[in-house]
Order: sequence, then C-alpha cells, then structure tokens
Amino acid sequence: MESSLRNHLKGKVVEIIKDSVVSEVVVETSAGMITSVITTRSVERLKLKEGDEVFAAIKASEVSIEKP
Amino acid sequence: MESSLRNHLKGKVVEIIKDSVVSEVVVETSAGMITSVITTRSVERLKLKEGDEVFAAIKASEVSIEKP
Amino acid sequence: MESSLRNHLKGKVVEIIKDSVVSEVVVETSAGMITSVITTRSVERLKLKEGDEVFAAIKASEVSIEKP
Amino acid sequence: MESSLRNHLKGKVVEIIKDSVVSEVVVETSAGMITSVITTRSVERLKLKEGDEVFAAIKASEVSIEKP
Amino acid sequence: MESSLRNHLKGKVVEIIKDSVVSEVVVETSAGMITSVITTRSVERLKLKEGDEVFAAIKASEVSIEKP
Amino acid sequence: MESSLRNHLKGKVVEIIKDSVVSEVVVETSAGMITSVITTRSVERLKLKEGDEVFAAIKASEVSIEKP
Repeated sequence: MESSLRNHLKGKVVEIIKDSVVSEVVVETSAGMITSVITTRSVERLKLKEGDEVFAAIKASEVSIEKP
Repeated sequence: MESSLRNHLKGKVVEIIKDSVVSEVVVETSAGMITSVITTRSVERLKLKEGDEVFAAIKASEVSIEKP
Repeated sequence: MESSLRNHLKGKVVEIIKDSVVSEVVVETSAGMITSVITTRSVERLKLKEGDEVFAAIKASEVSIEKP
Repeated sequence: MESSLRNHLKGKVVEIIKDSVVSEVVVETSAGMITSVITTRSVERLKLKEGDEVFAAIKASEVSIEKP
Repeated sequence: MESSLRNHLKGKVVEIIKDSVVSEVVVETSAGMITSVITTRSVERLKLKEGDEVFAAIKASEVSIEKP
Repeated sequence: MESSLRNHLKGKVVEIIKDSVVSEVVVETSAGMITSVITTRSVERLKLKEGDEVFAAIKASEVSIEKP
C-alpha cells in the first residue's frame, strides 16, 4: 500500500501517555522529538510501546513554516 | 511569542514551487525532506527562498503513526 | 506497514484535476463521492489515474459530525 | 446554511466514548465505519446518542489517498 | 443541520483569488482578516463573491495558541 | 520568529478544561469565543491560565466557509 502522504519521519517511540479516548505518542527522530496525538484505540491496535521503530506521518498541507 | 505547537523541525529550504494560491516548500532536515503546502502570500511575506534556515512546524493532532 | 489512521474508505478514482502544486482527486465510494486535495507530486508518484482502486484515508481528529 | 466542506458521509452513530475534553464517535456508513474525535461539549450540544442519523463531514484537504 | 464544529466567525468576503483547484477566500471579521483556502468548486457551488456575508468555520483541534 | 500561519486572532483566555492528554482552551475575541484543543503539556509549558492575553492561530487550509 502506497500513500499520498508526503512526510514520513523515522524514529523510535520514547513515551506514551494514554487517556481513554486519545493518547500522546512521543517519537525520537534524528531531527528531534515529534509528538503525535492519536486515538488510544490506534495505540492498542498497533500494539505501540516504548522502543518501537515507527514513522511519524504528516500530510503536506498540515506543515507550516517558521523563519527566524 | 511562544506557540502551543509541539513540533518544530529545523532545516533548510531546498525547493519552492509557486502557484497563484498555494506553494510547495521542501525543507531538508536531519530526518529527511519535509514537504509543506502554504499560501503563496506567506511565501512572499516571509520572503522564503532556497537556502533559508527555517523550521517546519506541525500540530501534534496532525501527526499519525505508521508501524512497519 | 500499519497506520494509526482510523478511516480508510474504499473506492475508485473517477476524476483528477491537476494544477502545478495541488490536485483534486474524486473517489467514488459506496457512501458517495469523496473529494481529496493532495500534492500533484503525490498524484504522479502514485501514478494515479481514473479507474484506479484506492482508499481515501482520514485521521479521526479531522472528522466533524453534522446532525440534521 | 451551506458549507464549503466537500465531504458529507451519511450514517448512524453506533458508539460514543466520552472523556472530559474529547469524545470518540463511531458512525456506520455504507462505506464502513467512520471514527471521529470531537469535543465532548459538541457531543452534548448536539445531544448525540447511539442510533442518531448523522453525517460525517470532512474538508477535502484532510483526505489522503492510498493505493494498494 | 447542526455541526459539531465549535468555531464560526461571522464576516464579509473581501477578496477571492481563484486558481484551478483551490482558491483563497479572505473574510473580514471583527477580530481581523481570516484567510481560508477551499476548493474552487466550493467557491463556485456556494457562488461566493466579494461582499457576501459568511462564517469562517474551524474545528477546535485545528486551533493553536500563541502567547506573547 | 515569523510564521507562515495566516490567521492570528487576539483574545483573552476565559476557560481551560484540562485532561491528562489534551485540554480545551476557550479564548474570547472580538469576533466571539474561539475554542482550541491543544496538548495539556502545551498548556503547562505556556503556563496558560484564565485572563492571559493570547492569539488563536489557524492555518488557512483548516478554515471552511459557511454561507447562510
């Protein structure tokens, strides 16, 4: 299955905070920590746990640009 | 000005494709290329050009997780 | 590769309108037409064309509810 | 009131998981289950309950395409 | 039709820039200009034009907070 | 730091509902109440509290248009 999603950042899960509906998943990448909020059901379906190798995926239209 | 946005990936602009309403901005980070679609007016207001040091900013709720 | 994305609607591409940066892709599903706007580069990378069997994928946080 | 939102999928609410800030609402459509995360206040304001006929509404820019 | 969308800002369309796939619609509200990018087909379906009284609608999960 | 984000609505925080992962932040602007859902960690990092002067920031691609 190929996806139109343009951004896939490789990393390792370093922290999961679970609540009843949504969970925060923190992924350590070579460009720094990436924080994701997904449904807790997805955390369970994917059996996500600390140490897992994953990709953080982001649609291009969701990315804004900041200039110092 | 501090922002609630959780994700800020440092990188360098390597390509800009401009159309009349939206533009694609490609940023090279240490975790790979990040593609952003923003309005062309923002490209012009920020005077974005290839070589600029920027941050790609993403709200945590926009990040999904993929597991190989 | 498994994704945390909760929504995957099966359908067939019935129309593609290409512009230089983004394209509109219309997918016919059993629940009606689904319209997607993705980058034209993704249209080309996936070699999307009318008739292709695809899935429209949507993060749960992007879905709102309307009640008649 | 007409909306620019391009996608409106008709269905029936089959499950609601409420937390203090956000809730998960699962809608059965003819194209499969659609999961939505909305604020719990919206669930209460719309008086959403299982069995309600609703539409799942999605902006076109939030839909990605997957190709098998 | 009631919507779960939490944010509806009343205003007047002051500018529309049309491209083949997406258009920029600028709405003057009492809190300043709001810029929207929607599909050109929605602009045409709603027959949007300068001077129209409209609402800019935004899902709560799409709003970030900045603190000076 | 300048951002490509097009929409910044000035207002005052009038309510915060905290949960373990996400929080609802309500901002009173001159165009009405704006509701935001952000991570609770961002609420804490920004030390957000009722009465704070803030901006509600929104990407143009997240804004839809409703016409009465």
